[in-house]
This record gives sequence, structure tokens and C-alpha cells, in this order.
Amino acid sequence: MAGNSFGKLFTLTSYGESHGPALGGVIDGCPAGIELDLEAIQQELDRRKPGQSSIVTQRKEPDTVKFYSGIFEGKTTGMSIGFVIENTNQKSHDYTHIKDSYRPSHADYVYDKKYGFRDYRGGGRSSARETACRVVAGAIAKQMIKGVEIIAYVSGVGTLKISKPYTELDLTQIESNIVRCPDADMAAKMETYIKQVRGKGDTVGGIVSCVIKNVPVGLGEPVFDKLHAELGKAMLSINAVKGFEYGSGFEGSTMFGSQHNDAFNNDGTTKTNFSGGIQGGISNGMDIYFNVAFKPVATLIQKYETIDKEGNSVEMQGKGRHDPCVVPRAVPIVEAMAALVIADFWLQNKVAHL
Amino acid sequence: MAGNSFGKLFTLTSYGESHGPALGGVIDGCPAGIELDLEAIQQELDRRKPGQSSIVTQRKEPDTVKFYSGIFEGKTTGMSIGFVIENTNQKSHDYTHIKDSYRPSHADYVYDKKYGFRDYRGGGRSSARETACRVVAGAIAKQMIKGVEIIAYVSGVGTLKISKPYTELDLTQIESNIVRCPDADMAAKMETYIKQVRGKGDTVGGIVSCVIKNVPVGLGEPVFDKLHAELGKAMLSINAVKGFEYGSGFEGSTMFGSQHNDAFNNDGTTKTNFSGGIQGGISNGMDIYFNVAFKPVATLIQKYETIDKEGNSVEMQGKGRHDPCVVPRAVPIVEAMAALVIADFWLQNKVAHL
Amino acid sequence: MAGNSFGKLFTLTSYGESHGPALGGVIDGCPAGIELDLEAIQQELDRRKPGQSSIVTQRKEPDTVKFYSGIFEGKTTGMSIGFVIENTNQKSHDYTHIKDSYRPSHADYVYDKKYGFRDYRGGGRSSARETACRVVAGAIAKQMIKGVEIIAYVSGVGTLKISKPYTELDLTQIESNIVRCPDADMAAKMETYIKQVRGKGDTVGGIVSCVIKNVPVGLGEPVFDKLHAELGKAMLSINAVKGFEYGSGFEGSTMFGSQHNDAFNNDGTTKTNFSGGIQGGISNGMDIYFNVAFKPVATLIQKYETIDKEGNSVEMQGKGRHDPCVVPRAVPIVEAMAALVIADFWLQNKVAHL
Amino acid sequence: MAGNSFGKLFTLTSYGESHGPALGGVIDGCPAGIELDLEAIQQELDRRKPGQSSIVTQRKEPDTVKFYSGIFEGKTTGMSIGFVIENTNQKSHDYTHIKDSYRPSHADYVYDKKYGFRDYRGGGRSSARETACRVVAGAIAKQMIKGVEIIAYVSGVGTLKISKPYTELDLTQIESNIVRCPDADMAAKMETYIKQVRGKGDTVGGIVSCVIKNVPVGLGEPVFDKLHAELGKAMLSINAVKGFEYGSGFEGSTMFGSQHNDAFNNDGTTKTNFSGGIQGGISNGMDIYFNVAFKPVATLIQKYETIDKEGNSVEMQGKGRHDPCVVPRAVPIVEAMAALVIADFWLQNKVAHL
Repeated sequence: MAGNSFGKLFTLTSYGESHGPALGGVIDGCPAGIELDLEAIQQELDRRKPGQSSIVTQRKEPDTVKFYSGIFEGKTTGMSIGFVIENTNQKSHDYTHIKDSYRPSHADYVYDKKYGFRDYRGGGRSSARETACRVVAGAIAKQMIKGVEIIAYVSGVGTLKISKPYTELDLTQIESNIVRCPDADMAAKMETYIKQVRGKGDTVGGIVSCVIKNVPVGLGEPVFDKLHAELGKAMLSINAVKGFEYGSGFEGSTMFGSQHNDAFNNDGTTKTNFSGGIQGGISNGMDIYFNVAFKPVATLIQKYETIDKEGNSVEMQGKGRHDPCVVPRAVPIVEAMAALVIADFWLQNKVAHL
Repeated sequence: MAGNSFGKLFTLTSYGESHGPALGGVIDGCPAGIELDLEAIQQELDRRKPGQSSIVTQRKEPDTVKFYSGIFEGKTTGMSIGFVIENTNQKSHDYTHIKDSYRPSHADYVYDKKYGFRDYRGGGRSSARETACRVVAGAIAKQMIKGVEIIAYVSGVGTLKISKPYTELDLTQIESNIVRCPDADMAAKMETYIKQVRGKGDTVGGIVSCVIKNVPVGLGEPVFDKLHAELGKAMLSINAVKGFEYGSGFEGSTMFGSQHNDAFNNDGTTKTNFSGGIQGGISNGMDIYFNVAFKPVATLIQKYETIDKEGNSVEMQGKGRHDPCVVPRAVPIVEAMAALVIADFWLQNKVAHL
Repeated sequence: MAGNSFGKLFTLTSYGESHGPALGGVIDGCPAGIELDLEAIQQELDRRKPGQSSIVTQRKEPDTVKFYSGIFEGKTTGMSIGFVIENTNQKSHDYTHIKDSYRPSHADYVYDKKYGFRDYRGGGRSSARETACRVVAGAIAKQMIKGVEIIAYVSGVGTLKISKPYTELDLTQIESNIVRCPDADMAAKMETYIKQVRGKGDTVGGIVSCVIKNVPVGLGEPVFDKLHAELGKAMLSINAVKGFEYGSGFEGSTMFGSQHNDAFNNDGTTKTNFSGGIQGGISNGMDIYFNVAFKPVATLIQKYETIDKEGNSVEMQGKGRHDPCVVPRAVPIVEAMAALVIADFWLQNKVAHL
Repeated sequence: MAGNSFGKLFTLTSYGESHGPALGGVIDGCPAGIELDLEAIQQELDRRKPGQSSIVTQRKEPDTVKFYSGIFEGKTTGMSIGFVIENTNQKSHDYTHIKDSYRPSHADYVYDKKYGFRDYRGGGRSSARETACRVVAGAIAKQMIKGVEIIAYVSGVGTLKISKPYTELDLTQIESNIVRCPDADMAAKMETYIKQVRGKGDTVGGIVSCVIKNVPVGLGEPVFDKLHAELGKAMLSINAVKGFEYGSGFEGSTMFGSQHNDAFNNDGTTKTNFSGGIQGGISNGMDIYFNVAFKPVATLIQKYETIDKEGNSVEMQGKGRHDPCVVPRAVPIVEAMAALVIADFWLQNKVAHL
């Protein structure tokens, strides 16, 4: 059934395949009167777009967003906001070799089984290209929740990991390198590593960490729509994500209550923040922070054995233009999804009282 | 806004506070004609109920479910199913000491800030007691998706962890011990450990692992309602959960694509299963498996400093009847939420085609 | 699929069959901090309950509502509100004669075809008994939207109709007679008429009119969720309703724009109100008024021919306790549904702006 | 909040203002594998488009729909279907005179009050131009529910009305005249009448009737989502609609049960059809029929007094290109909305059983 909408009050409904004429969507529920900086939206798209650096896919797409409604005299009108991003560099011929075969750890097989057939060009709807629409909507959400800061960065590439917590990092340095890692030394190592992996036609996974500052107390809804539950769903809905943890995360499962409890200061802030800014599913005003694990991209520039539709073994050769490691480009996507979640709960919280 | 519903087609809407007269809910969207084993539903509740063993809270509740509608002559009628579980052992006097104070890492503070006041008795709606309703609905979901096996177990208590994958465990042994750990030696260690922790008035976190077998190919909906995204949300909505990972999980972020890709057998199954039974958000017929991290319970039977509503420092003494470690009782809750997710997507998949 | 919920932000999810143990529901999304007058809620139920006068069904039900959650110290807490109304006078033996036969213009046939079988006792879920839950939720909604007045009355019974518009009626007289018609002379005629119809074992249709005063400007959401579209759906979802019109209604289709346009006064009110208080789907602050047409009840206390499950002709004899004309008891139901719609849009309007 | 989506399983989310660059939308939930006749979709748009005859608005728009996703090799893929209709003839200068004034019985006033400001060009989002998107989605819905026939026609213009029921009309003649009235004599009268009204710069209301044939038994969901309740909401959401009645409608409220009950034939069909093909909110396989009342268009080509934003009286002169009577162009819109409702319940009914 319909699964292309995200959010309850601030909603994005998106469409578009990797190699169709265009991607696009509708943002519905954006409040009226928000002054939009359209350039800032395009800049977010530019952070995600292919071809932006030497360690990402070399597909060339301008990824220019055009808005068709819901904005008048520079402000949101409260009406639904329609937008379109044209595909300009589809190269359909790159993908005909996968028409009748199933690439390992791709969605080819399950789409065919579920729907009876599939748009096989570049992965069709299952391509991460759809996340461009998320970035557009997230960029508007960011402008709606002024004052909230959402900062994502790469904290792991393969086994290379930043060991310091975000509080000890210089988050202003994230965009100073193409990996989007705030630790310059580690960023250099990661860049070298990604290039090595790419050189072998291989790919590698990684971790994006995110911190959200200045969230007001009270966002999140008992009992199913907990703030971290929606953040988790948002992150897990991004292509290639395998795990989500917030606050103390998996490490928290090894701790004692006497260590883990966050004692209050007299102003309601807490001395520690193992809770990760969320208690009982509701923001408590402290920083929200979380990690998102990405698997290695499934497309390798290597020969491999797989099967065709009839179950016959076939040999294939990976080609096309793909990311050797998705995390640098995933940074703005993680931020966008976080912004959508915060914006949605921001609005939801307005009806907690009359 | 309303956050007490879970599911799109097979939905649970629940209500009830820890110390109110009753909990209950409505299951809407359950298809007609399913023969229900009402005893099996009660048995699931019994697995979750307090007082069942020496390592869980000693609050005594029969947790008997009564159905009021939607079932006729032993079968579901397609109508909404109303049910009630009465609270019989509320002991409100245990909680009056927290009326004006905020316990660390509880929801007291955020509920007061969000709603202006709160039902402070036993944590009110923020108590994990509401999960009893999830177990009722999950037990019906399990009966709907006959053939699918959902098996959760405790794989970690504090730093004690089962290192073997589920495929090397004897999952028939889970209910043979009160920890619900399939490895008898580890179970004994965990039991001892929990008792030690409780002896100190402390608590400890843990991990519940879950495997789902015999899921048909095709469950999950692109692009936001990916099967694992909904599973993640479902698990993260359970009290005390801090993290979720499926398939290769966080470990997968350290791997190469050439290791991680699951090569196909000729029948469409895969030789390995790093994907965790889900590709592109859609089940591929292989086992689904995931881990859920629980933080240590915040209620300690210790003295501690905290603040009251006015921000004054106050000393409090933890009392009441609480779990030193939630994971043994979380096992049926994890299963119930997994069943709700699978049942929902089962129905959603029926409208993928005409 | 699930069709037992009404409302987007202020929601009712209900359950219960005519002859099951109880009816009930969950009200989710009610804002926190509303002081509830529980007696007023029961009074609304009393206005709807069977056996209240000589011209309604003589089934005896106390229709006492019990609340299980979401209310603490006399106020709503923002949590979901669970409630139950027990059935005490089911008389199942009255209905066994309809087990295998299909009564004309009842839902027997379509329920059997849709679901494969049905709870045949008293019409099961298709009985108007479910509307008791609507009245409970509507009574809470009324208390939420303080200041708004919702006044329904009987304006037609068969061919007997009030010709005056609501502005020329004394609406304080509605509850002064058992028909709930504000015109005393007409009420007397209608009462006599209903008794005559009942004497013949027959039934008759009627019209309920409703006016809503003091609605703030701005309720209703473009483009599908227009205020009158939701009011229409709300009314049409009540058992036996065949039509809905608001403002100028069907008569408006015969008018010229030069007659029908409502000229503005300088304060934004309008000189006429053919619009019925709604322009472009959004309330304009003028009175909202509408008519709801009810068909005659299908249950006659007469002999009639019909068919059984196998399509054989059978003769049946209507019995049981039924309303000869539903409109007197429909008055509080119409008000309740109107209250639910207004309350929902009241909340929706809070997120039109930041 | 978001109000630009229609449907639960087969959903349309639309956007676009009268004088913005484009209208468009996303159809989500359309099942995979439906062969689409794209020309037939454009033909439906052509039936609605402005400028098609001498009795409708002379705005010239090609109303060409472009699809961007969800269709591959001529068939729906199960993915969301994005589409765009460009505005080519906006003539913004026609509307600057209404920037600071409120036209009577338009949405100008309520939009300004609700949102703080508005896109005043041509009525912005409140213009009926948005219904073009409904026609696109409805045309796809029609192709999905093959076999179901949805036939709307004009049955009333002002006081000119067809008195015969649809069963006595030659519905093949609807498109043979520009009024879309199946009775040729009446159509000629209506056409003359509309031209007279237009000659005076005035407008007039009308009625569109609709019949839906070959609907399978079982569509509609108890208790709130009754088939006729959704049809009613769908119709009432169309611009200018003031009333909806189905089956016996308002006339049914004057009847006795002994007249109104539809006796069964032995095959489950009924001898009469006062029910209008729906019993208990669920289709019974008989023809569904209903009437929709439209008010006269508010835009007159006359001088009139109104107020500006500050409440000052101002004189205005109606101009622009408007329909003197909307019903001829409303015919395909009514059909489209009916198709969306039927398609949605068609899918919903698939999950009534496993």
C-alpha cells in the first residue's frame, strides 16, 4: 500500500525513480508565514548531489529543485508545496544488463516478487536517488524550526572510527573535508581508505552520527510515537541503514542504573546525558544525539555470480557510477530526516494543550 | 497529538495508566474469520506479567484480559475488538512521595512540562504497564500470521553476552529458565548477576534478540515504510529501549561490500544472510533477525538527590516494586511488537496487486 | 480495513455490538488540562438512551459510562481516554430468528457477503447502538470547545415539516417535548403521528436540523478536508442517514449568484448567510446550519417475505424493540458528531501557523 | 494541518494554485500491473478543461498532464505516481484588483483570517482549478476498477430539472450536448438559460446526478467509513457543493418503512432500490445513485459593494473568465471523485479476509 509519505502533521509525499524523467514530492502541513530561503534549500541539495567530490559517484546531476506551489511573496502560504527535480543524466543503457538478473543484496529480487515486475533502470524507486526529495523537505523543515541546530557528521568508515563523543569534537570542521568528518586527521585517513576500497572495485560501510541542539522540552508523543522511535524509523528508512542507537545506545545496555541515571541540576537540565535528550519518548531540552549504521553499498565494480529470473546462474560484471562509501553523502540526508521528525513533533506539540 | 495507535491496517489503539482502574484497547482491522485461541492470548500475557519469578517486580496482577467485541462463535468478525485488563493491585500510596518531585531518567519532568501536570501514580501512562495491551494485540496478530514463527530471547544482561549467533542456539530452551536465555550456562550466570544487582538496590540493562522465521517474500513498503524501519520504530517505542539493529547491524558498517553481499542460491534463497531477511525494506524470505538494547531501569532502591517542581534540591528514597532488569519480561513484548509489524505488512501486501 | 476511528487529531476509536457484553472506545488526542463535567457526559447519553419516552424503543439500558484512563483529578491528562458502556439487557433470544435470513434494507446480507458470517444478534455492529460511544466522545468534545453552541432539533417527521428557518424558532424549547421539535404545535402533531405509525407496526423517516453558533473563523482545511465535507461525512456515517445539506443546500442550486452571494458588513460578518457559515470549506464566523435526512427504520412489526442464506423465500415476522422513528434519539447523536468535527478542526487550526 | 490528501489506500495528494506555474500531485497506493490508457486520462481532463464550449469559462488551458514516475512499459509499477499539469494562461493582471478586498461568498476573507495572508491571484488554492488533479487521479482509478461504470450528468440548472429517475434516461446521450444533460429537450433549455444568465453577468446553480453500476457487493467499512459517507465527503469537498443525497435521499425522510424497504429477489438483488445500492454503509451490488447540489458561482460580471482588509466599504467590478454555471464542467469531477472512493474501498475490501 501507499508507503511514500512521511510525517503526520508536517508531511512529505514523494515520487520518482532513478532513471525516470523527474523526482518530486508534496510537502503538506507546512504552517503559513514562514519566510523561505530558497538558496539554502538548494545548498542542502548540493551537499547530497552526486559528483560533488572525488569519493562519491560520478553521475552528473544538477539536482535543481523547482517549486510549483505553496510559496507566495517569499513565504509559505499554508498550502501544499509541490516541487520537482528533473533527472538529466539517466544513462539508461548502463542498466539493461540487470533487466533479467538479480544483483545480490539489492532490491531487484524482492521488487519482482512483490510487484510482478520492476523498473530495472538504475534500481528504479529503490535507488537512493529518492533521498533528494527528503533533503528538499528537510531543508524546509529546518527553516521552520528556527533555533534548532541539526548537525550530522561521519564518525566511522569501515573500522576507522572517531572514539571521542561529539562534545569533544569541533563540529564547525565537518564541511572542511570531503568525508564530512570533524576530526581532520581521521578525515584524511578515511579519505585515503575510501579511495583504496574504490580502487579494488569494492565498497565499505560507515557510521553517521548526529546531534540536535536547542530542542524545546516536550516533543514526542506517548506511547507509540516516542521521539526516538520516530527518529529511529526515519533513519532506518534511509537506504543501506542497518542500525540506530541514541543516547547511551547499545553501550547503555551494559550499564547499571546507578551509573546511567542523569541527575538533575536545579534548572531542570541534567548533569550527565545518557538519556540522549529524551526521557519517556519526550525531549527534555538536553542535546539529542544518535548514531546510524550504514552497510557497504551492494554495487561492486567486480565480476560476480548471481541468478536470473528463471533461477539460472549467470555471471555479471558490476559497472555504473556508484559510491564506494555512502556516508559522506548520507550526512545531509540524516539531517533532513531528523529535521522532518523534529518539525512534525513541533507541530504535534502545539495541540497538547488548548 | 494522538500517539496511542500503532499500525496502519492492523491497528492497536491503547489506553491505561499504571494505577488507574484498568488498561485496555481496541484492535481494528483484524480480518474476519480467524479462529482465536483465547488461552494462548492469556498465556502471552502471563509471560509478561509481574510477579512471575524471583527476578522480576513483585507487584501482583492477574492481568486477565476480557474481550468485549469483535469475536463471535470463536472467530474474529472483522469488527473492532475491544478488550480490558483490570488493575487490581495499584498500591497508590507507594507513589505519593513522587508527586511533587522529578525522579532522574524518568518521564516525570517531561510530562509535567509538556502537559502542565501528570498522573504521578506509578508513572501513570509512562509506566511499562501499558505494554500489556501490546501483548494482547500481538498475541492476536501471531494467530493471524499462522506459520510465521517469532522467537525472542535474552542475549545480554549487563556485560554478560551470548556471543553465538541465533543459528547456533537451541531456541527451544528459552522458556526453560526465568531469564529467557537459550544458553543454560549463561542463563544461570545472568540470573545470579541480576540477583546481585538487585541486592544492591541497583538495576542493569540488557539485550533482547529476536528471530522471525517463515516470513513470505514481499512484506514492507517503499520508501518510508520499510519493513525494518517499522520494526525499529516498534522496538524503540518499548519503554527503556536505546537501540535497534538488524541483520549485520552496527557490525555491518565495518564490512566490505564483497564480504557483506549475500550471494543467491538458484532457488532465490541466499548463501549468507547479512541482509537479515530484508532487502530494500522488503522481506526476501530469509530469517529476519535483530537486536534490541534496553537501558537499566531508572528506579533504584537507593537514596538519591533530585529536584522538586520548584527546582529545589530534595533527597528521595527509591521504593516500590520494580524490575532489577527488564529484559526477561521484555521478551514477550518484543515478540508482540514484531507480530504487530508483520501482521500489518501482511495485510498491506495484499493490496500490492489487484 | 479499520473503519472504526473518526477524526484526525481529536479521535474516537470505538467498538461494540448490540448484544455483546459492552460497547466502548478510546478518545485519543484530547488536549491536557480540560476540566471535565462527568455528569454532563452522562446526561448526553441519557438523551440518546433507549426507553426514555413512549415514542422510542423500549429496550431498557442504563447506558452508564465508566472512564478508565486519561482523566486525573477531574482534568484530562493528554493521555488516551478509555471508556466502557456495559450492555445489560441484550435479550439475545429475540434475534435467533434472523440468524439464517436476511431482513430487507438491513445490513444482514452485506455483512454476510463481506465477512463470510456475522454476529446476527440484534444487528451486531451494524446496530445504531454503537452511536452511544459517539455521544460519549462528542460530550467531551463539547466541553473542549467551550463557547461553541451546538443545537440540533427535529424539523421533520414524515411529511410533517417545520417551514421556518432556525432563526425564527425558539431553540430553548427543544427539550420541552419528547419529539425534540422546537415548535410546540408541530411537536404535538409529530408525536401523534409517530404513535399512529407505530400502531400499524410501521416506521417513518424524518429530518434533524442543526445549528452551530460561535464557531471561530478559520476552521476547515483546504482542499479535501473542508469543514462541511467532514460534517457531511460525520452525519452520513450515522445509521439511516440518506442526505446532508448545509447553508442554502439543495435549494441553493436553484438560485442566482446575485441572490445567493452574502454581502459583507464592515466588521466581516455577512448580511445574509446562504453560505451557512462556511466559505471555501473554512468557517467564517457566521452560524453554521445544516439538515440531515433519515430514512424510516427498516424493522417493521409486520409479517414480510424475504430470503435466507441459500436464497430460499421465507416468511418472517418483525419483532423486537425498535424505534418507530429515529429522529428524536438522533438529535444528541447529530450534536455529538458535529462536536467531534468542530473539536478536530479546532486542533487542526492550531497548526496553521507556528 | 495537511488537508490535501484524499483516500486511505488509493490516495491522491495534490498541490497547485490557480495562477502558479503548475498543478500536480502524487497518486500513492495504486496497485502494480495495471495497464494504463494514457489517452483516456487526457480525455477526462479535456472534459473538465476550461474553454471547451460556449457556456464555460473562456480561460484557455491545454491542461496536458505529464507523468513522472510509477509507470513503466505502460503499466503501473506499484510505486507512487507523480504528475504535473502546467498553467499556461495565468493572466495574473486580471486579479490584482482583489488583492486587498474580499469578494462576497469567496474564500478571500477566510484565507486571510486563517493564514494571515493569501495568494490572491485567481483565488489561489481555493480556485476550482485544483480539481484538474482530481480528474487525473480519478481517471487512473477508473482504469483500476475495470467493469465498474460511473456515469454523471446534469439533472438540474437553476429551476430547470429532469424529473425522471436515471433508469428512464438514455445515459448514452450525456456527451451529445454541451450541458451534459441526457434529455435533449431539457439540455437545449438549459443551454439557453445559462446563456441568458451569463448575458446578465449573473450565475446560476445546478445539480449533478451520478449512477455507479456493477459495484461488487462488500465495499464500505463499518462504522465511520461507510461507503456513502465517503462518497458524501468526496462530493462535498468539490468547490461550490452544498448538498449530497443518495438512494431515496431527502425524499426518503418522508416515507414509511413499509414503502421504503427493498424486498429481496431470490438471487440477493432487490425488487426496489430505495437503498441506493448501499445497506449499512456497504455496497449490495445494486446501482449506487446520488445527487450533488452546486451553488451559483460567486463571481459575477457586475458592480458590487464589498469591504477591504481594513473593513472599509469598496465598490468592485467583477471581471475575469468564469463559468456562469459550473455543472457541465463538474460532471467529470463528480465521476473522478466517485472513482477515487470506489477504488479506495475496492482495495480496503481486499483485507476484510486473509
